[in-house]
Amino acid sequence: MSEVHASRRTLLRERYAPAGAQAALVSQPANVRYLCGAAPVGAVLLIGPAGPDQDTLVCPIGPAVEPAATRLDSELRLVALPEEEPDAAVSAAGLAAAAGVETLAVEEHHLSVARHRALAARAGGLRLLDLARAVEQQRLIKDEEEISCLRIAAEIADQALGELLESILVGRTERHLALELERRLIDHGADGPAFPTMVGAGPNAGRFGHTPTDRRVEEGDFLCICLGAGYRGYRCEVGRTFVIGTSPADWQIELYELVFAAQRAGREALAPGTAYREVDRAARHVLDAAGYEESFGGRIGHGVGLEIDEDPRLSPSAMGKLDACVPVTVEPGVHLPGRGGVRIDDTLVVRSEADGGPELLTITTKELLAL
Amino acid sequence: MSEVHASRRTLLRERYAPAGAQAALVSQPANVRYLCGAAPVGAVLLIGPAGPDQDTLVCPIGPAVEPAATRLDSELRLVALPEEEPDAAVSAAGLAAAAGVETLAVEEHHLSVARHRALAARAGGLRLLDLARAVEQQRLIKDEEEISCLRIAAEIADQALGELLESILVGRTERHLALELERRLIDHGADGPAFPTMVGAGPNAGRFGHTPTDRRVEEGDFLCICLGAGYRGYRCEVGRTFVIGTSPADWQIELYELVFAAQRAGREALAPGTAYREVDRAARHVLDAAGYEESFGGRIGHGVGLEIDEDPRLSPSAMGKLDACVPVTVEPGVHLPGRGGVRIDDTLVVRSEADGGPELLTITTKELLAL
Repeated sequence: MSEVHASRRTLLRERYAPAGAQAALVSQPANVRYLCGAAPVGAVLLIGPAGPDQDTLVCPIGPAVEPAATRLDSELRLVALPEEEPDAAVSAAGLAAAAGVETLAVEEHHLSVARHRALAARAGGLRLLDLARAVEQQRLIKDEEEISCLRIAAEIADQALGELLESILVGRTERHLALELERRLIDHGADGPAFPTMVGAGPNAGRFGHTPTDRRVEEGDFLCICLGAGYRGYRCEVGRTFVIGTSPADWQIELYELVFAAQRAGREALAPGTAYREVDRAARHVLDAAGYEESFGGRIGHGVGLEIDEDPRLSPSAMGKLDACVPVTVEPGVHLPGRGGVRIDDTLVVRSEADGGPELLTITTKELLAL
Repeated sequence: MSEVHASRRTLLRERYAPAGAQAALVSQPANVRYLCGAAPVGAVLLIGPAGPDQDTLVCPIGPAVEPAATRLDSELRLVALPEEEPDAAVSAAGLAAAAGVETLAVEEHHLSVARHRALAARAGGLRLLDLARAVEQQRLIKDEEEISCLRIAAEIADQALGELLESILVGRTERHLALELERRLIDHGADGPAFPTMVGAGPNAGRFGHTPTDRRVEEGDFLCICLGAGYRGYRCEVGRTFVIGTSPADWQIELYELVFAAQRAGREALAPGTAYREVDRAARHVLDAAGYEESFGGRIGHGVGLEIDEDPRLSPSAMGKLDACVPVTVEPGVHLPGRGGVRIDDTLVVRSEADGGPELLTITTKELLAL
């Protein structure tokens, strides 16, 4: 992996150098991990002008560095943060200044105003520029190794969900179902859950931002589950809605079919060159036409990768177009207060039609199962 | 609770108003929660000049606001974030400017440079000042209601740990033990784990920043467990080290007694008026004198509350003195590469001698147990 990270740093250097920066300081943890294979808590990466083997990871004091170092790009220099200077970004700016760097690009969307000020004070005559979201931009399109990590993460989430569905659900609480799913994720080799597992039953099903409660699953409920696995840092998600009992009510079938149609429309809109907002519109239109309001926080989906919620945003106000090899979620939902609702959520990779169209990573069935 | 939050906001207003700010914008999530009882994701709090019932919580779009609102201070105004403006801080600055506010204090240690710039642009002629860590300062000393939440959180963590110790440990992996502890925390009524549970066995025991692995517990191991519970938002932690098997080796007894003595020295140093660095020194001195280096990231302990790691820092370079009713951890550790090590971690509340001295919240025994 060491070559991959070095060439990512070289690519980044080619992006910021023309803007007049001699060096760059990367502080956003997922960006640090992307560029050097690990991100110990509090570590920052200083990308110097010399070449990838002169780049420096500045890490907080303590043996925490040891285990992290084993996963690190071997060509990276490792500097421990002095105890008297608790902020690695400030320390890295000092190193850059000492090495004769005059212009340093920093992540202004991540550094706080106070850290930025401390950094400027420490670095003396150094001129600070904005690296902006250059690393996030670079992370947008995934290579095949990244996609294969996402594929494994999706398999793990599908397995955990599949096993849960074979057990008896009635009478168990949302919280216990969520915990069991998280245990199963780990059993199947996940780093951990990609985000806190969401389980909503009855009136809680399909509610945006729901946190599992002590509500027990009952006959006749909608049961809505959304979970994700992390694998080697890469995170995916899957969400499904089920009916508890022998046969769903008419309103449940109707609502399910509607959300399913919206989700399918969103999935089918995924293609290289499609505007982000068009994917949102495709799914949202189906719900609008039936008189329902989408209930998932103003967007139909989002990118996934080293973060569970990263660029692009598939929302009405998003600017930009999809590229091939961009993994995204498509996850419309509808919630009826007091009755519950439906959410269907997949992770897919955008592919051209010649490559077979969007690649579905989360393959758990989307039939309405009565459990 | 609504009165508590309103009076906290009044107190904050009295702190910043003399510095020339007419209003304050609080964006740090734990600070938002402290001042209004809930912190929906992405929400910010605008404290206006008029009085606590004119303060405004600006929340992202979507039904997420509904459940949060039920826990909110009823005297607070709630404004939903418009979809075209995804940042609540920017929106709140606009509201302040529209209400005729000319000087607004913001949290420069939390707002990124990019958000701060967007906020300044949106708010036109508004002059931005630094609220700095005024809310964190206010959160330092806890009231009895906050301490009783911490006490319950500690009880839950003690219970979960106590139950685990009654089960068979040999042959189980660090990851499974960590998961079981987290399940038990929830069983006993925790909101969730206060932080990712740390379990280290054999050479991993006592390693700083260790993440549970598939290493199984073996006869003769040190087993080091550190966990915490959250209860109504308040987080505490407890850490213990055990020996697996019938009788500990001499080096294990010696190392345990040393860390125990260091931890006791740290606990005994807790008193109103003691400098933060004196607590650190008291514990560290014991390890230094025996020729060992403290292995827990450059500080002996830290404050706990709505965050698991908050002010004060009990480190060699910390400035300031302890007050009564400040809850802190005392958690020295030593790690011997290849062999493992010991960490002992308690949460205590600083109390005057007249009030009985430091109040130990985590009461699991600190005898060296052979399990």
